[in-house]
Amino acid sequence: MNESTETETAPHQHGYISNKDGYRKRLRRIEGQARGLQGMVTDEKYCIDILTQISAMTNALQSVALGLLDDHLNHCVVDAAAAGGEEADLKMREASAAIARLVRS
Amino acid sequence: MNESTETETAPHQHGYISNKDGYRKRLRRIEGQARGLQGMVTDEKYCIDILTQISAMTNALQSVALGLLDDHLNHCVVDAAAAGGEEADLKMREASAAIARLVRS
Repeated sequence: MNESTETETAPHQHGYISNKDGYRKRLRRIEGQARGLQGMVTDEKYCIDILTQISAMTNALQSVALGLLDDHLNHCVVDAAAAGGEEADLKMREASAAIARLVRS
Repeated sequence: MNESTETETAPHQHGYISNKDGYRKRLRRIEGQARGLQGMVTDEKYCIDILTQISAMTNALQSVALGLLDDHLNHCVVDAAAAGGEEADLKMREASAAIARLVRS
């Protein structure tokens, strides 16, 4: 996964920065869901009920990913595309690869 | 999601119980991944690197779900199917619904 390492040298404002608190809050809730799932296993809850919670957690995680991706496309990628050249190609390729990983996951 | 609520009255050993510690350990690691993601947002890490971690976390979560589902099918569902009747139908329907939710999530 080396292709996704930050290569920029100029200071750059990532798209999601304006909503850092929102993303942190959603991820904290997801962390709580992971803790809740451990409790369900400890309490020997019914398998199907655990699976339902895992589906809800996966949906929450995918929704965060889609938000980040949208912010990324609308900031980093659009900026790079406007500038053109090799950097634009790189941004497009890494965005496509990230989307492919999300779809596969 | 009422259809997934435990309806059994007889004591029943869920399929995953024999490996509770293993599931708890994997879920604890997933909880750590959620905490790590919050740190990445706080540190304003590169969007694509955050997305890569989300994909890894989603894969880990789906792998836990598939393990639980496998245990469930091989214990609860097989037992119910052998007994037959309404209980068997119910188990099949709720397992199918859980699989559909996982595939959609």
